[in-house]
Amino acid sequence: MATHKLLLLPGDGIGPEVMGEVKRLIDWLNSAGIAKFETDTGLVGGSAYDAHKVSISEGDMAKALAADAIIFGAVGGPKWDAVPYEVRPEAGLLRLRKDLALFANLRPAVCYPALADASSLKREAVEGLDIVIVRELTGGVYFGEPKTITDLGNGQKRAIDTQVYDTYEIERIGRVAFELARKRKNKVTSMEKRNVMKSGVLWNEVMTQVHKREYPDVTLEHQLADSGGMMLVKWPKQFDVIVTDNLFGDMLSDIAAMLTGSLGMLPSASLGEVDVKTKKRKALYEPVHGSAPDIAGKGLANPIAMISSFGMALRYSFDMGDLADKVDAAIAAVLASGLRTADIKSEGTTAASTTQMGEAILKEL
Amino acid sequence: MATHKLLLLPGDGIGPEVMGEVKRLIDWLNSAGIAKFETDTGLVGGSAYDAHKVSISEGDMAKALAADAIIFGAVGGPKWDAVPYEVRPEAGLLRLRKDLALFANLRPAVCYPALADASSLKREAVEGLDIVIVRELTGGVYFGEPKTITDLGNGQKRAIDTQVYDTYEIERIGRVAFELARKRKNKVTSMEKRNVMKSGVLWNEVMTQVHKREYPDVTLEHQLADSGGMMLVKWPKQFDVIVTDNLFGDMLSDIAAMLTGSLGMLPSASLGEVDVKTKKRKALYEPVHGSAPDIAGKGLANPIAMISSFGMALRYSFDMGDLADKVDAAIAAVLASGLRTADIKSEGTTAASTTQMGEAILKEL
Ligand SMILES: CC(C)[C@H](C(=O)O)[C@@H](O)C(=O)O
Ligand SMILES: CC(C)[C@H](C(=O)O)[C@@H](O)C(=O)O
Repeated sequence: MATHKLLLLPGDGIGPEVMGEVKRLIDWLNSAGIAKFETDTGLVGGSAYDAHKVSISEGDMAKALAADAIIFGAVGGPKWDAVPYEVRPEAGLLRLRKDLALFANLRPAVCYPALADASSLKREAVEGLDIVIVRELTGGVYFGEPKTITDLGNGQKRAIDTQVYDTYEIERIGRVAFELARKRKNKVTSMEKRNVMKSGVLWNEVMTQVHKREYPDVTLEHQLADSGGMMLVKWPKQFDVIVTDNLFGDMLSDIAAMLTGSLGMLPSASLGEVDVKTKKRKALYEPVHGSAPDIAGKGLANPIAMISSFGMALRYSFDMGDLADKVDAAIAAVLASGLRTADIKSEGTTAASTTQMGEAILKEL
Repeated sequence: MATHKLLLLPGDGIGPEVMGEVKRLIDWLNSAGIAKFETDTGLVGGSAYDAHKVSISEGDMAKALAADAIIFGAVGGPKWDAVPYEVRPEAGLLRLRKDLALFANLRPAVCYPALADASSLKREAVEGLDIVIVRELTGGVYFGEPKTITDLGNGQKRAIDTQVYDTYEIERIGRVAFELARKRKNKVTSMEKRNVMKSGVLWNEVMTQVHKREYPDVTLEHQLADSGGMMLVKWPKQFDVIVTDNLFGDMLSDIAAMLTGSLGMLPSASLGEVDVKTKKRKALYEPVHGSAPDIAGKGLANPIAMISSFGMALRYSFDMGDLADKVDAAIAAVLASGLRTADIKSEGTTAASTTQMGEAILKEL
């Protein structure tokens, strides 16, 4: 059995708690002889700042580069609101994405039937919802230069951020979306603001070309990002795969996640390109939810998104689709049994702490 | 009685139809001696392109600069998808905003009680919703330079858009938001992405200063734009006034509008600075909805957003708050009578065309 190297980066807030439940699962997989994971742990975000005054240390970056996959919790919180911009908690996550070239962020927005009523949307609008947002993750306004604040004198400052996209960056994220759509309902909706942004014009042009040249069998639609956002709220089930840039993807995937009523349940995968020699790809898996500092340390956090992110790692990094299916089934079974953490509690269900939820899923497995 | 000069720019798609109902209202106000409006009409968007191969002619720009207020329909449609970027329909609207320095875009998102069920959100989430998005409209990525597509050779192109904000731009839009909040529930939520964007850092800093220095009596909260979008979907009633930049405002205001289920009902105002000498300000009023080319020319469009935008003109440009209240009351009365255009039709209501709706509102007045 091959040994897989995992780097666990719990981060801040509820990160360590939910990561604890993944650790429990990994230990069991190892001891039951189902898989062989070698785990190491590192600091990222506010916890790295508290320890070393950085958002991630060079040592942990080296571990990240050497790992087969990174399992990431969450970063940030008001505690670090005043730290210098360069070492703010989010910088650690952004550096991981950039230095590992994790350009493809897959964010499924699935409405768990048992939780349809937790959505602020009507049941009929979200029941059975199953879409994926494919977000470009290493380009756009997140990393473009110049990115500066300049003092102009007279009490005036000027802030600049730069949105940059090259053809190849749009092509490769397009391919990820089209490939994914082929395994799903065969439809891709590309979203940009070509009526205002030059990057939107190029995005639209390149998506159209990639489609025509390589994926004519997939349905491609284009939507302006603002009306796309509206359509997401109005009738999300019209979508299958949505492909969009880094910043629009940030907004749209959060909104899509919130629609489902299952925010504490949603995983994500950030993938690099497949290496031609090793056939491997760098990857980082993290829940869609944030660090939720307000409930941290209270055993209230829902570990399902984190466990489900580990499930995505099994599927995308380790070719253990069967085991991933079993993890998904265990989560569904525990939910069906009525167990709920505080965020998804409703009448007639049984309250569970973070640990109780993690243990129940493991027992089901 | 003072004469007010209006420039009507119906634009494309359903623009001319809904503008027709405003024209009917203006004619009646004139003939009944209630007000004195001098109206002129111009072309903008696709209709200007079809006539003159521009998105707005210099003649119409001159009229716009000379008018006391502009009443704007909507622009764009697939018919003009292939026209050169510089003369695409939206360019006309963007030039009006920029050349008239209409930096403050007020977008109320109000849920009409009679229409609460038209929302994809649950009734309890949107009933009674009444928030305003104050969107910065002449800065940010919409107008920043460089804004280019460059051919890099080898089949590669590079697209660049630039987000730029200066202190004074953030200050003045902040003041608009705080002033508005004072007349409402006294709360402002500022949204940006300070964890990723330098413009977000400056935005946050300047809002905090303006608040401390000039509006300490108003409650100010800060939210990251992505989680702000989530919160809008989850529980929009927590907000009063949201202030945000041009691009986030574009996304967030569309989403807020869609939440209400009243998209065809929502007006907007784009305001310039008050001139110290004349005490006047340039202003443009337009519905939040777009040109809806799919239903254009069929008498299906809802004219309420357009009429209500004219109501905002009465209030903000002509100091006729009483008349504006009467327009609002007439709209509410017609809705209460059960009359509905196709977009807001539900069981037990009476179908109305664009014209029938416009006439009913006028009759009510
Ligand atoms: C934490 C932050 C930098 C990050 C982002 O903006 O990408 C987060 O919002 C996300 O969506 O993963
Ligand atoms: C038509 C388009 C240029 C415009 C914008 O992006 O500002 C529209 O979406 C709006 O919100 O008024």
